[in-house]
Amino acid sequence: MSRLHWEDFTPGQIAECGSRLITRAEIIAFAAEYDPQPMHLDEAAARANLFGGLIASGWHSCCILMRMLSDDFIGHASFMGAPGVEEVNWLAPIRPGERIKARATVLETRASRSRPDVGFVKFRFELVNATDQPVMTLIVSPMFGRRAPDSARGRGPKAASER
Amino acid sequence: MSRLHWEDFTPGQIAECGSRLITRAEIIAFAAEYDPQPMHLDEAAARANLFGGLIASGWHSCCILMRMLSDDFIGHASFMGAPGVEEVNWLAPIRPGERIKARATVLETRASRSRPDVGFVKFRFELVNATDQPVMTLIVSPMFGRRAPDSARGRGPKAASER
Repeated sequence: MSRLHWEDFTPGQIAECGSRLITRAEIIAFAAEYDPQPMHLDEAAARANLFGGLIASGWHSCCILMRMLSDDFIGHASFMGAPGVEEVNWLAPIRPGERIKARATVLETRASRSRPDVGFVKFRFELVNATDQPVMTLIVSPMFGRRAPDSARGRGPKAASER
Repeated sequence: MSRLHWEDFTPGQIAECGSRLITRAEIIAFAAEYDPQPMHLDEAAARANLFGGLIASGWHSCCILMRMLSDDFIGHASFMGAPGVEEVNWLAPIRPGERIKARATVLETRASRSRPDVGFVKFRFELVNATDQPVMTLIVSPMFGRRAPDSARGRGPKAASER
């Protein structure tokens, strides 16, 4: 199978990126290590909070998305990581026993100004629950290798006029 | 000790939030669970990458910061979580054996429009390495409880004029 390169992404494309059942054990294990707030750690303590029960850490949601993308997407692409994240929104809690799906929407693509073999793809990733309600959105612009490097770049006048 | 409330934060304040030694074992353990790319998992495979050796996942950096804040800051504050993250920048890799410090700068504060007992504090958090080079910055606006709820809010004309 041909790996996905920068040229394969077009604004408006939407892809499903797997599905995962979130267990109570993993919510608690993540919280114990990275975000030990009572609402992520302990069912009894969590009942007193705004959400009325145990919920996953927002950072856990990010990590779950990363793992889903790793399993279903990145391995099939010339993925080169991202210099950061543009925005994360935690819209609704993820509770134990929920099945979560990931969805990717391509927002825009742009060539790298400095590297003719690389381009950026801006995505909105969503985690949605079983009723198709988004529980998290994340905007990020990872780099991908280009199938056909832009040989014009870096050659005098043309390079100077690139946006 | 009095817990920190919304009123205790002022733009320009800077605080150190602990220090942590990042081990090879934890870099690999995180990657195996959440971000299994070779550069985060395997020293030999990582040597071939851009960074020339094993580096922590960017998501791991976020989780390390969250844990440092949990240990050194959140427990002493009326912290109520955040609805998301405004921006993350991964500026330099974190390598095994590096000691990382966290630093918080208050950028702005604003009262909640809907809840008189709550306010937002916008922070720039930085992880810096032993040479004081920032390796990650993160902008986020968590909510904190107010010591003195704004009793004017929600009372007719005054509420209507709030920004």
